[in-house]
Amino acid sequence: MNSFGRIFRVNIFGESHGDFVGINIDGCPPGISITVNDFSEDIERRKPGAKGTTPRKEDDIPEFVSGIFNNKTTGSPLTILFKNNNTRSGDYEKQRAVPRPGHADFVAHKKFNGFEDYRGGGHFSGRLTVAIVAAGVVSKKIIASLFPENKINIHATILEIGGEKDIEKGLQKAIDEKDSVGGIVECRVTNLPIGLGEPFFDSVESVISHAAFSIPAVKGIEFGAGFAAAKMFGSHHNDALINKDGTTATNNAGGILGGITNGNELVFRIVVKPTSSTPKEQQTLNTETGNVESFSVKGRHDLCIALRVPVVLEAAAAIALADLMMASHPDNNRDQRRGLNV
Amino acid sequence: MNSFGRIFRVNIFGESHGDFVGINIDGCPPGISITVNDFSEDIERRKPGAKGTTPRKEDDIPEFVSGIFNNKTTGSPLTILFKNNNTRSGDYEKQRAVPRPGHADFVAHKKFNGFEDYRGGGHFSGRLTVAIVAAGVVSKKIIASLFPENKINIHATILEIGGEKDIEKGLQKAIDEKDSVGGIVECRVTNLPIGLGEPFFDSVESVISHAAFSIPAVKGIEFGAGFAAAKMFGSHHNDALINKDGTTATNNAGGILGGITNGNELVFRIVVKPTSSTPKEQQTLNTETGNVESFSVKGRHDLCIALRVPVVLEAAAAIALADLMMASHPDNNRDQRRGLNV
Amino acid sequence: MNSFGRIFRVNIFGESHGDFVGINIDGCPPGISITVNDFSEDIERRKPGAKGTTPRKEDDIPEFVSGIFNNKTTGSPLTILFKNNNTRSGDYEKQRAVPRPGHADFVAHKKFNGFEDYRGGGHFSGRLTVAIVAAGVVSKKIIASLFPENKINIHATILEIGGEKDIEKGLQKAIDEKDSVGGIVECRVTNLPIGLGEPFFDSVESVISHAAFSIPAVKGIEFGAGFAAAKMFGSHHNDALINKDGTTATNNAGGILGGITNGNELVFRIVVKPTSSTPKEQQTLNTETGNVESFSVKGRHDLCIALRVPVVLEAAAAIALADLMMASHPDNNRDQRRGLNV
Amino acid sequence: MNSFGRIFRVNIFGESHGDFVGINIDGCPPGISITVNDFSEDIERRKPGAKGTTPRKEDDIPEFVSGIFNNKTTGSPLTILFKNNNTRSGDYEKQRAVPRPGHADFVAHKKFNGFEDYRGGGHFSGRLTVAIVAAGVVSKKIIASLFPENKINIHATILEIGGEKDIEKGLQKAIDEKDSVGGIVECRVTNLPIGLGEPFFDSVESVISHAAFSIPAVKGIEFGAGFAAAKMFGSHHNDALINKDGTTATNNAGGILGGITNGNELVFRIVVKPTSSTPKEQQTLNTETGNVESFSVKGRHDLCIALRVPVVLEAAAAIALADLMMASHPDNNRDQRRGLNV
Repeated sequence: MNSFGRIFRVNIFGESHGDFVGINIDGCPPGISITVNDFSEDIERRKPGAKGTTPRKEDDIPEFVSGIFNNKTTGSPLTILFKNNNTRSGDYEKQRAVPRPGHADFVAHKKFNGFEDYRGGGHFSGRLTVAIVAAGVVSKKIIASLFPENKINIHATILEIGGEKDIEKGLQKAIDEKDSVGGIVECRVTNLPIGLGEPFFDSVESVISHAAFSIPAVKGIEFGAGFAAAKMFGSHHNDALINKDGTTATNNAGGILGGITNGNELVFRIVVKPTSSTPKEQQTLNTETGNVESFSVKGRHDLCIALRVPVVLEAAAAIALADLMMASHPDNNRDQRRGLNV
Repeated sequence: MNSFGRIFRVNIFGESHGDFVGINIDGCPPGISITVNDFSEDIERRKPGAKGTTPRKEDDIPEFVSGIFNNKTTGSPLTILFKNNNTRSGDYEKQRAVPRPGHADFVAHKKFNGFEDYRGGGHFSGRLTVAIVAAGVVSKKIIASLFPENKINIHATILEIGGEKDIEKGLQKAIDEKDSVGGIVECRVTNLPIGLGEPFFDSVESVISHAAFSIPAVKGIEFGAGFAAAKMFGSHHNDALINKDGTTATNNAGGILGGITNGNELVFRIVVKPTSSTPKEQQTLNTETGNVESFSVKGRHDLCIALRVPVVLEAAAAIALADLMMASHPDNNRDQRRGLNV
Repeated sequence: MNSFGRIFRVNIFGESHGDFVGINIDGCPPGISITVNDFSEDIERRKPGAKGTTPRKEDDIPEFVSGIFNNKTTGSPLTILFKNNNTRSGDYEKQRAVPRPGHADFVAHKKFNGFEDYRGGGHFSGRLTVAIVAAGVVSKKIIASLFPENKINIHATILEIGGEKDIEKGLQKAIDEKDSVGGIVECRVTNLPIGLGEPFFDSVESVISHAAFSIPAVKGIEFGAGFAAAKMFGSHHNDALINKDGTTATNNAGGILGGITNGNELVFRIVVKPTSSTPKEQQTLNTETGNVESFSVKGRHDLCIALRVPVVLEAAAAIALADLMMASHPDNNRDQRRGLNV
Repeated sequence: MNSFGRIFRVNIFGESHGDFVGINIDGCPPGISITVNDFSEDIERRKPGAKGTTPRKEDDIPEFVSGIFNNKTTGSPLTILFKNNNTRSGDYEKQRAVPRPGHADFVAHKKFNGFEDYRGGGHFSGRLTVAIVAAGVVSKKIIASLFPENKINIHATILEIGGEKDIEKGLQKAIDEKDSVGGIVECRVTNLPIGLGEPFFDSVESVISHAAFSIPAVKGIEFGAGFAAAKMFGSHHNDALINKDGTTATNNAGGILGGITNGNELVFRIVVKPTSSTPKEQQTLNTETGNVESFSVKGRHDLCIALRVPVVLEAAAAIALADLMMASHPDNNRDQRRGLNV
């Protein structure tokens, strides 16, 4: 399904060149304050325009269709739309025979029997991440209301681009090579309660990775020490408990033991593949003629999509954590009630 | 929940020192041949006994409780039990105040308010992976019946142990240091149909990682080129299509584009942290006294749990793929009917 | 949740006095032809305007937001909006202290802690049934495409109004009494395949009743002989099989045995309570003053809401059957592929 | 699926003539006291032996496989088995060609392609209601722990048998006619909190009817005034609010408005069809020969299955209410924590 969550459920919809993309969220608690301004910062962070990102202009003002009344959630399903502007559909028809390398064109055509909206990637477009970001804004607010005293903070940053910790340098590589580059993004969540997650099948790692791999171009995820754990001894990897609140001296577990949050910082990293659309000339198949053709992308595209991913990753984490809090935490409504329902 | 899947649903249950661990599977097609012998090979592969694994004796003969009649699935829910033998519960009570480093003892106690079965890790025990392996055996058979002509093959192998590709050498490190080590396991699936998965939230990466992180000690996963993609240019990472069946010249995508299988080999790797129980002396907290104590594990334990993981990872992959086939593939019942329902 | 279905999932959203009500449908097969005109007939049947129904003018042109391209479903989530016109919100604020008898005002206020959109019933409004009808139109088309040779027909009719089989007579009672009346609606579905449903928990009766009780004002449902079975002998109630296709001489089972469709006509009836808004003066509580007050409804309202229910009941049945076909039928994709995927 | 619930999920399994039938319950809160004795009363009420019920001897001692430790739930999945005794499988093979009228034999054969366990109804057997009763016992205890101050009581009774309020008289009809009879069972739940249920798709009526129609032989359900509402005026059907707690002067709504509990008694009735196995000679088809044959049931069978239904209906209601409390009530964990988690 194109949805996520058990009792906090996010449904995503829309296509790159349709009228709108949007999100429908079921299971929002009532009384959460939501205004258009709440979305500005995160939507701004996702926007193109920085060095290395596409100049496509997207205003991205959220339009509230349902579930909000007097600037507060009502408890009924929340629907938010984002208008698609600045789309040019003209040239897609003739490109259909030449599936873009690294894109979903070929699989979309096969999966949907040729009925897919093929314009600009259709439903597979990165454009839909604006809807994920919006769901993230709502999820962050819900998380804050569920555990108001915790002051839970979700923050993602870029660790490296094009193999360089100096990010400008990594981008310059792509510019010099007339190519695109990938990157690594890290997300940290502080002050989570102990006890989120289930031992099997709904571990915190399971649920967060499920959400994170919804972000286009993500190809790997690791928690805490992650892949480096393969080279560690057990006595070094184990995090020693230092007090009764669960604080540990190190955090190789990334805040999760046995699939359950242990009260330490939640830490995970994802890898974002290089943008598939690259100005470099590539060989690909024309599925009509059966010939291999030269192919290069002319239009506006990100040199490095990873630059726009941090806020989307925060959103995916927030969506996953909100569902974990509602579905699997023993105290899930404690603070919500304290705050809202006197 | 302690379950996985949308219309092919696997429910896991049991505790390390209870009478049984087991699995309940809903959504099995009828007519799949299942006998006790079908489980032998995979259960044998999971067993301890090899160098570096614990000598705990586990016979692990599956007991069929429901859903099988005349050695075939009936289409009603399948329940399989495995008897727990060779458990010694005596010493656990007094160890409760000293949560084992790297284990779920502390979080289990917090999450379940002290009511958890704390003997041998209880429901968090690696013992439950025998139930996952059993679900994997069933899932592999279902996959074979859904696409009989494909001859889909799921195979996982160890890539490195303790940082060494020579695995004996990696284990020797642990023996020399009286410590434990981690490892990396790779899984490859050949001949999958094109079209499994959904673009958002139920991407193949999402669903497989969700299942894979149910395996205790897994802390990272990557698909295709994985984390190495962070250092690649787009023109190198993109896999060039070379024929109309979807075959690509390289496979950096690991068989998945836009969250959807593209007909190439599915390739992913996981990292398994070093066994948390290590003979090395460690410092940890006594939660009753509040003092930090020395702690070391006396009993039987694996030096490297990764050695037993490949068959469990195959099982997790098979469970995930079976659900993907039933829930998201346009031709999900084609060959099932062809084979069974003439 | 405000959603229905396992792998064919319908999400409903909107409020009576918001900008739109709508529906998001995940799990539509691709290639189903959908145009605005396809909705006209069913939406017309739901409309007010006939004797006994409210004159509120509702144009109700579906606006397609996602999932449709070139007049066909794409396989990605389908979102349809209906604009709310002709709403007057002015007087609701002051009525809040006096919950309307028979309506959800009181429970909505309690459940949503006072944050509910209280204008015109908000999310509880019968207005949302236009979204159910739209989902029904889509579901009927999907059903037709899944089993094209069957020519499955879903048709609901009014059996009685105000206790009268002569419906005009029943309505006249309400007019004479300046009150409202209820009714009974029957739905029949012909040419269903054998094998829909599951023996426990997802019986056809379970799934259809789950959907049918989503329609506001429905307070009972019965299948086949229904409540009359309480007075029958077993030898009379049993339907004798008369041929190998499953045809039975009688149909007291209403087409369902053991929770599974048996190939005969599916027959069920629902009772619709009298419209809660009635011109008759009633006593009710002012929750602010604590006094019992006289109360009567001035505005436009249906004398008998049952008159508008048949098309909504068809829609609920179609939604339920589409999910049953996709999730539980052994041959679920046979004809879909035959029809669409050559 | 053969499961029920969103975050409190009950999975049923087993066949009439297998070794065991059983139940797996995921989502139990930890710390609920559960002993074998807790099941005695409800299991005794379900048992055959009374006038009009079959003399099949069933000891029905629950065997706890997982999720219970020191006589309390642990918070991990709970699995309970019931051994099948006293089964005679010998004669079923030759009866396969003659599907029993009113039973699921024919549809099971079609749905499961001939692989169904056909002995004694297999997975469709009323025998599985012992597992529903067990899940009901657990659910009742959970409900009590979630709202300990409410003293919620769930009680079902027989209203009529064979069309007679004097139940002995109704049974005598069946004995005199050498036939079977049906009945009506009513369930009442007192002291429920306000606010369970959702306006669309997960109304309390939807969720309870979904569960109730899992009980074999149930063919109708009505809430409050139910089908009688079809003959009432709105001003009579509306229940006047008489105080701020939500108490109403009458209870025609059966405790549910807008799909949400309103704090009054929850009242609903189901109809149970006459036992399909009747000593009366009936005509039915031999699907091998194609001939219509005379058929009568020789063995032990209930004259009126409705006699055994009340405790099963209570169980279905308890399962549904427990899920509603966990998934949809704003205060779902309030009292649980108060009671258990000091």
